[in-house]
Amino acid sequence: MPHKIMMLTEADLRKSVGLSSEVVDVVERAFAELASGKVVMPPILSMAIPEANGEVDVKTAYIPGFDGFAIKVSPGFFDNPKLGLPSLNGLMILFSAKTGLVEALFLDNGYLTDIRTAAAGAVAARHLAPKDVRTAGVMGTGVQARLQIEAAHLVRPFEKVLVWGRDADKAAACAADIAAKLGIEASVESEPARLVAESQLVITTTPAREPVLKADWLHAGLHITAMGSDQGEKNEIDPRALAEADAYICDRVSQCEKLGELRSAIAQGLWDRDMPAELGAVIAGHAVGRRSESDVTICDLTGTGVQDTAIATFARRTSATVGVGTVMEA
Amino acid sequence: MPHKIMMLTEADLRKSVGLSSEVVDVVERAFAELASGKVVMPPILSMAIPEANGEVDVKTAYIPGFDGFAIKVSPGFFDNPKLGLPSLNGLMILFSAKTGLVEALFLDNGYLTDIRTAAAGAVAARHLAPKDVRTAGVMGTGVQARLQIEAAHLVRPFEKVLVWGRDADKAAACAADIAAKLGIEASVESEPARLVAESQLVITTTPAREPVLKADWLHAGLHITAMGSDQGEKNEIDPRALAEADAYICDRVSQCEKLGELRSAIAQGLWDRDMPAELGAVIAGHAVGRRSESDVTICDLTGTGVQDTAIATFARRTSATVGVGTVMEA
Repeated sequence: MPHKIMMLTEADLRKSVGLSSEVVDVVERAFAELASGKVVMPPILSMAIPEANGEVDVKTAYIPGFDGFAIKVSPGFFDNPKLGLPSLNGLMILFSAKTGLVEALFLDNGYLTDIRTAAAGAVAARHLAPKDVRTAGVMGTGVQARLQIEAAHLVRPFEKVLVWGRDADKAAACAADIAAKLGIEASVESEPARLVAESQLVITTTPAREPVLKADWLHAGLHITAMGSDQGEKNEIDPRALAEADAYICDRVSQCEKLGELRSAIAQGLWDRDMPAELGAVIAGHAVGRRSESDVTICDLTGTGVQDTAIATFARRTSATVGVGTVMEA
Repeated sequence: MPHKIMMLTEADLRKSVGLSSEVVDVVERAFAELASGKVVMPPILSMAIPEANGEVDVKTAYIPGFDGFAIKVSPGFFDNPKLGLPSLNGLMILFSAKTGLVEALFLDNGYLTDIRTAAAGAVAARHLAPKDVRTAGVMGTGVQARLQIEAAHLVRPFEKVLVWGRDADKAAACAADIAAKLGIEASVESEPARLVAESQLVITTTPAREPVLKADWLHAGLHITAMGSDQGEKNEIDPRALAEADAYICDRVSQCEKLGELRSAIAQGLWDRDMPAELGAVIAGHAVGRRSESDVTICDLTGTGVQDTAIATFARRTSATVGVGTVMEA
């Protein structure tokens, strides 16, 4: 039976969805729902395509009370740059949660993922960073370095940003972009230890396989959000730091123990606490995050299907308001 | 980076893909590749949406040598008929196996699944049914009852079809449709035991949760393809029949032991043989299926991602030849 499907391209979505307090609220609500125990979120479907140095991940989640649910397909083909193509791509599909009919297709090339990932960083900062953040540090110099700082600034309006990256030119470009975007001071810090020492909020956004942030650098009143690790080989944070922090919080325990910082800590026998709390439980008040301004907190984000369902339902609404998209009869 | 995506609707696909020997060959090749051990086929991602009596399944497979791989999303919302909507829907996405870029979107409402499922039945009949099939029986009266018979007729040009269903009117309509489509005799048989006794090939296409085909009805020279069970509660074939047949063949052991006829046989302690052979292994000559015209054979089809990748790459090619589809810049 033919029905109408709204097609939205990356260009349409860039006109409809940006980083805003509203987007942060939408993603926060999704995390809170995750803590309710009523969300259905299957494990990530992951398929490797070794011949092309590629892999593809599929994420989804059903959140009761949301009109739709998203299925997101994220291919990563790491030889693409040799062909002049980006490594990451993908699309999201929004289904009606009542009928299962396809409502909208987001041909976003990963744009909505960028936004919902940064928004999750802001949610973590809102609930776990100290109230008073004057300086924020970011490790890594890519799209997420820029977006994570922009999102965090919505909830902690810091005055200064420090950027560290392995490539000095990229770090300088990243700092310049941040300064221009937020109208605040942003500069390169070539010593990661100094970046951490001077920051109350540090966000790691690297694909590192060896820790870039040492446990010895933890200091009172520090919050770290580690969002780079989303695969079993990655590790940004010294595993010892997780147990040494006053609170270590996951987006999803079952994912972080396989794909996040928690995996390395467990592998090295450095995690001897109970089951860590999830971000949604902190938001919902079921778990304690930061207890004082001097606590050290770490949040480990691997990316969850609830964020995709949240951003997709939001994008469907705002794109209709903006009036973009093409209707297909299918 | 914007790139071109071919959008194909159900109407476009109905003009481009039908049941033919070519489609059967394409699906057969996919099964043979599955036996090579080089295919990457993750377990099905499945999510239940209890509030709407719905579920959604995601299947995929990478077949070396195929230009693309498909991801198929199949929602089933079983209260939809009350709203005047079909229960089953969905779409397929074809990705380049070299770059992971989305190449085509098949907004097919499940049409390609219908075709590849019927084609798999024909592959099973080609390799497992006796050479001489004069009468084919089908249990069930839905879309697959019609398509399975049409597909099987491509490989075993039988002269007569018997149709059994719980609803006599639906069975009569199904028989009339088959007779009109194939130009052969097709009639309703109200006694399933008689249908099986008179047929050399029987295809079960029901959503039964209690067996509709009894082990006592097995007779020399019978082949049964059971394609109705694709969930843990379904069961079409008397579990005792599996062990009593000369050969019991699966599309995929790891699926059939959870979703197929094999599940019920294992659950009732009636499966005491070794690991069953897969259809691909029979095609590739690595496993024995039928050894003589008098053998009794059973094939258990739960549906696999390789069929989706096979039909999607085929549909991409034939739709280009036919000249249908709409290009989107995304």
